[in-house]
Formats: sequence, structure tokens, C-alpha cells
Amino acid sequence: MRKEIYKGKIVDLRVETTTLPNGATATLEIISHPGASAVVPLKDASTVILVRQYRHAVGGYIYEIPAGKLSPGEDPKDCAQRELEEEIGYRASNLELVISLLTTPGFTDEVIYIYKGTNLIQGTQHLGDHEVIEVLEMPMAEAIAKIQDGTIRDGKTIVGLQTVWLQMGNRA
Amino acid sequence: MRKEIYKGKIVDLRVETTTLPNGATATLEIISHPGASAVVPLKDASTVILVRQYRHAVGGYIYEIPAGKLSPGEDPKDCAQRELEEEIGYRASNLELVISLLTTPGFTDEVIYIYKGTNLIQGTQHLGDHEVIEVLEMPMAEAIAKIQDGTIRDGKTIVGLQTVWLQMGNRA
Repeated sequence: MRKEIYKGKIVDLRVETTTLPNGATATLEIISHPGASAVVPLKDASTVILVRQYRHAVGGYIYEIPAGKLSPGEDPKDCAQRELEEEIGYRASNLELVISLLTTPGFTDEVIYIYKGTNLIQGTQHLGDHEVIEVLEMPMAEAIAKIQDGTIRDGKTIVGLQTVWLQMGNRA
Repeated sequence: MRKEIYKGKIVDLRVETTTLPNGATATLEIISHPGASAVVPLKDASTVILVRQYRHAVGGYIYEIPAGKLSPGEDPKDCAQRELEEEIGYRASNLELVISLLTTPGFTDEVIYIYKGTNLIQGTQHLGDHEVIEVLEMPMAEAIAKIQDGTIRDGKTIVGLQTVWLQMGNRA
């Protein structure tokens, strides 16, 4: 049994009563989300481009890889390219899917597809009214250090940076 | 301006109109969550204990590190120890905070504190009615490979495993 509580611009909330595999009945609060794409943009083999973005839900600016939510029917790779250009003003000649993650599967179905973007070419940044973003470049090793010291805290950003770093064959 | 839409058992939903640092007015859907703790439990230097847990929101069983949400006023370390014993039947003589992450800061304030648990001692598993969990042990190297091949998809689990792996000084 599903009860729709709210249909929003980004998320919908429903309360659903279901029978679990162990036979128990559970009433669960579930947020549905269209999903998102993100990119680890490498300007060269050792330099990543990040954004510092204002996120009202967590009360301030945080470091993130460029990302945005999927439009209806949009291919995640197209979304990745679109968001990359909109947020940092580059397009990636090569976009390779690195990993996808479930952000917090206890209460949402949100999936984020993370790409590695290489061979960057100049495009045009065009931020939405609600995107408050500063673009910055950083050595990958510094970004990994900023995860370990607690400066970078965004889940998709940590997953993207660490996964690309490990694929490069690096240690901490 | 805040409008409370729903107050749930786990999440609350509000719609909030706010002025962003760029002067624009935004109306945002925000999920508040009490936060959670998780543990990367190491049975020995190279063996991690994971759970396969049924998650209705994502439609099936997924691999996770043991985790659970904070009770009101609970210290995240106490929560980590409690959830570890409840889910896998071990306590950790040493619990060290490894990292904390914002699961998906576009729409929620949820923070997960991730600990490394070592020197495990036998305790008593006691699952809630709504926890459908199988416990399994795995070499850390295999868990890292299961991230790279897409078998392990949970955000906190990827972050916890990769952060501990990198702290150990490993390559992929």
C-alpha cells in the first residue's frame, strides 16, 4: 500500500507498507529522486577541477565534483556532459563511466552515475539562478588529502575522487 | 520561510524559501534526517565483515557495512558500537573515526560517521523485525574489487571501504 505524501520539483515522498522477505510488515518513508550524473574532470593526469557550491540543506559551501540531476528520459552520459559544461565551462572529449552509487538506500532510490572526464575543451559556463558556484583546480593528491582531513565531505565527490585515484594505481 | 510538509519516523520533509548568497530567492525541498553511524569491521588486518541487507527503497538486497541511525542525543561512537553488535554480533575493542560524509547534500542534511572497528570480540546479534540481514566475511581486496565491478553500490560502504583501504597504504 502506497500513500503519496508530496510531489515536489526534485523529490517525491511516499509512505509505503510492504511485506519484507522475512515476512514482517514494514511501513517505510521513501523519497523518490530522478537520479543524477557527476563528473571527475581531469584537466591533466594529475589535476582535477572541483566546485565550491552553496548547499542550503547543509548550511554552507562544500566541495563537490560537478553534478546535476537527470532530466526526464535523459541519458546519464548526456546529463554528465551538460552539467560539466554548465558548472565549470568545459566539455570532455572523453567521458567514461567509473562507478554508480546509491546515495543513501535506507530512504531513497537516488542513483548517481559518476564519469571520468578527460581531454577537456573550453565551453561556456552557464549557471542557473540557484547555483552558487566557485570553480577551482587542485592536484588529485591534494583532493585525496582533503578527503582524509575532513575538508571534502560530499559522498559522491569522495566516491568519485577515490575511485579514480585507485584506478590510477595510487596509494594514499 | 519554512513549511513543514511531513514529520516521519525517520525523515521529515519541509519546503523552505531562502535567499541564496547570490541574492536569488530559492524554494527548496529539504529532508531532515537524524544522521547515522557505520563501521568498517576488520576481523583481521585483511578481512572485513559486511552485511547483505534488504532495502525496499532500492528494490532488493545490497552489500553494506553495518550501520544505523542515531537515537536522539546519542553519541555517534556509541551508535556505531550498538549497531555493530546488533547487526553482526561483534563488538569492537577499538573504534576509530575514519571519516564523516554528507550523503546527498542537494536535498538532505544527513551525515554518516564512519568508524574503523578492530579487535572484535563476540557479542550477540539482535536484529530488529525490519532488518533482513545476512552477515558475510570477505578479504578487503575482494571488497575493493566488488566496488570496481559494480557489485557494491552503497555510498557509505564505498566511502568507508576505500578510505580504510587507502589509509592502509594500498593500491587498487
